[in-house]
Amino acid sequence: MTDLVSRLAAIVGAANLLSAEHDVAPFVTDYRGRYHGRPLAVALPASTAEVAALVRLCAAENIAIVPQGGNTSTCGAATPDGSGRQLVIALRRLNRLRAVDVPGRAITVEAGMTLAAVQQAAADAGCLFPLSLASEGSCQIGGNLATNAGGLAVLRYGTMRELALGLEVVLPDGTVLDALSSLRKDTSGLDVKQLFIGAEGQLGLITAATLKLYPQPSARATAMLAVGSAEQAIATLTALQDAFGDRLTTFEMMSEACQRLLDKYQPGKVPFFSPWALLVELSDSGAPATLQAAFENWLAHAANLLDGVLAHSEAERTRLWQLREDMSETQKRDGASIKHDIGVPSSAIPAFLAECDAALQAAFPGVRIIAFGHAGDGNLHYNISYTRPGNAALFDDEDAVNAIVYEHVYRHRGTLAAEHGVGQLKGHWLARYKDPAALALMRSVKRAIDPQGIMNPGKWL
Amino acid sequence: MTDLVSRLAAIVGAANLLSAEHDVAPFVTDYRGRYHGRPLAVALPASTAEVAALVRLCAAENIAIVPQGGNTSTCGAATPDGSGRQLVIALRRLNRLRAVDVPGRAITVEAGMTLAAVQQAAADAGCLFPLSLASEGSCQIGGNLATNAGGLAVLRYGTMRELALGLEVVLPDGTVLDALSSLRKDTSGLDVKQLFIGAEGQLGLITAATLKLYPQPSARATAMLAVGSAEQAIATLTALQDAFGDRLTTFEMMSEACQRLLDKYQPGKVPFFSPWALLVELSDSGAPATLQAAFENWLAHAANLLDGVLAHSEAERTRLWQLREDMSETQKRDGASIKHDIGVPSSAIPAFLAECDAALQAAFPGVRIIAFGHAGDGNLHYNISYTRPGNAALFDDEDAVNAIVYEHVYRHRGTLAAEHGVGQLKGHWLARYKDPAALALMRSVKRAIDPQGIMNPGKWL
Repeated sequence: MTDLVSRLAAIVGAANLLSAEHDVAPFVTDYRGRYHGRPLAVALPASTAEVAALVRLCAAENIAIVPQGGNTSTCGAATPDGSGRQLVIALRRLNRLRAVDVPGRAITVEAGMTLAAVQQAAADAGCLFPLSLASEGSCQIGGNLATNAGGLAVLRYGTMRELALGLEVVLPDGTVLDALSSLRKDTSGLDVKQLFIGAEGQLGLITAATLKLYPQPSARATAMLAVGSAEQAIATLTALQDAFGDRLTTFEMMSEACQRLLDKYQPGKVPFFSPWALLVELSDSGAPATLQAAFENWLAHAANLLDGVLAHSEAERTRLWQLREDMSETQKRDGASIKHDIGVPSSAIPAFLAECDAALQAAFPGVRIIAFGHAGDGNLHYNISYTRPGNAALFDDEDAVNAIVYEHVYRHRGTLAAEHGVGQLKGHWLARYKDPAALALMRSVKRAIDPQGIMNPGKWL
Repeated sequence: MTDLVSRLAAIVGAANLLSAEHDVAPFVTDYRGRYHGRPLAVALPASTAEVAALVRLCAAENIAIVPQGGNTSTCGAATPDGSGRQLVIALRRLNRLRAVDVPGRAITVEAGMTLAAVQQAAADAGCLFPLSLASEGSCQIGGNLATNAGGLAVLRYGTMRELALGLEVVLPDGTVLDALSSLRKDTSGLDVKQLFIGAEGQLGLITAATLKLYPQPSARATAMLAVGSAEQAIATLTALQDAFGDRLTTFEMMSEACQRLLDKYQPGKVPFFSPWALLVELSDSGAPATLQAAFENWLAHAANLLDGVLAHSEAERTRLWQLREDMSETQKRDGASIKHDIGVPSSAIPAFLAECDAALQAAFPGVRIIAFGHAGDGNLHYNISYTRPGNAALFDDEDAVNAIVYEHVYRHRGTLAAEHGVGQLKGHWLARYKDPAALALMRSVKRAIDPQGIMNPGKWL
């Protein structure tokens, strides 16, 4: 093993092959602190060639590989097991901007660039890279691709899959797949890059990507609106899309329980209490005043609105967004909860909430349900606490809560992992709810591409 | 064999199992008349269960299957071979509208619906299904998916892959894969539907799909603009995107040779002659007059424009579009040409044209190059004739012409099949130009999913 470690070190340089316990510590525990591993070592390659050499050596020695980006997975997808036999390959040094093509609206970056750095490189070229997430300062673009990340602008721009034009991937035998295209249309064979997007590093290791750029919007209009029911929230979504088309960039919902919780820790900041608060943002090219006036005019005639606050300045806009962004932290301050990252068709949100809330209340009288999220694309964060008085022994009820929630999710043809992936956390639930033919297909693809099973084993595939 | 035919007939009913020569004739020759086959029979199933039963029987008897939609492939992708041993499964009877979800912006249709019928079903629900192609009256949605079709609105709405939310597929062993989701975000495992989009029926047979719907645009503004060079055309594309963002729905280029050819057969219809004519269309929600005024204002200040015609009525708009749509037919009237469906990054179009035009002129002095297409997404139809005086023996030069064209395409990281697929026509070129690691990956996926090799064999996979 010492010989193997020194051969790995010869590839990346001794300073970039970490094996001492305090050196590997930042790489062995997941973001939420649920999973802890003990790796063979952590390698920090700086080029695709170094990654390929590492993978070739691991394949020859039958050593498993755990690819890691910013280590912000909420499902333990990038944490090694405890065997001391897995090599973590962390991509932070593979972080160059390779090219920006403004007329072609494309940017080519290495996997270890943070999302924020990619956004900044796009902005420096006068363009927008629209993916936007809470962890954008530390998550890396390779991880965003490996988990098909979502976030705050999916309604308009799609998930990472729709933003990816091309990939460079080191395959499980160390071959480099060059699929770094910036083409919008290509029917020359299977689109092999699709295999690696959302595969959580189990089929290959993404080393670079070409991503779509968009024109920078020059105008934004932002409001927080009050509606009386989930049905009226979805009716408002439809009305906004009919009126503003693609200009509708963000459509978030927060339940009254969310508003009360925010008010508890930040008294006076919540503008109103209503069954649902909607955070709505439009963005557009053209003059900001034109968009603002169009939105004001729409608001003046909109049905269903009980109340509303329209931002008139960037400071007011930031204040409205802050309420949405504070939700996760505020919840944490209020104690533990059983979190879900579910999705249903947005048209099914009202029925899902009515039925699932009722089933949970029946099973756990007094349960607290904190529901908020990206309702425009059907993705809700649906978090449960107080299954027992005083929120005692909450996690003893986790399996029972999950069974109720996922049962209702799949009744509405939803998903138990809308944007956070599966990782180590949800593999057994996936096996229970996913179409068996789909699961069998996933496994046969895995066997075909990684017959040794060395790419990120111990996760869900 | 007679026994097998009667067992196939028992599945779909005798009237829907065609084997007489005059009955199978419409299914055995491709759209361009380049490929002719002789099938075992043609089956016309009316349900997914019938398709699954047919495939199970074929798998048991080791009979190859050729899926066929509207039979409009320009590459022979849906034509059987001459062995008399392949079963054509034509989907025209599997053509029901299963569901429309207006607030969820999704429509679920069976594979045999024509594209025009899907567009109409969306319009009946007050929505837009944006895929638009010349053959939309006869091509079927299953074929559009199997070839990842493109067309006239890709710049704004993406190709068929981006419009597909879910698929139902009969796998090569007859299992039905239910991936009929309408979710915008789903990270619960590999997105297995991606495998079948663009696979040209070689991995499974698509029986139904859930597709994205969009709000109907209420305003359109359309113009034909004259520019002096390909560089100025691409500068105009960038300027339009910066000014109008997603409202830019169509951006087509036609060279002066195209304009002269149209004028030859339709004297007086072409509004101007210039190095390049651009067909530009914006679409938006809101009042038509607002969009028209914004476009007029932009045109009044635009750089690079030599001339232009702005449509002021639906009739004028139709006349401008007609010129673009008449290009294929007009070319055919003028004699044979060697056609290409190439793509390069739109930013590379000027350099590609300059270099490839020069190389062709050097190799074939006097050659005529007809270049037009969806320049906004980099896809050009680049058609060659008169390699010799009088256009004699044109196809003797086909391989030499293709070699020059594809060499230049790949130098600019382009594709030899942007939207028409590969089929029987381009497999040998794919083998020559595609990344070897990508080709190997495609083959291992094929072996994993279709180990018997019964799904549409003799094509490129």
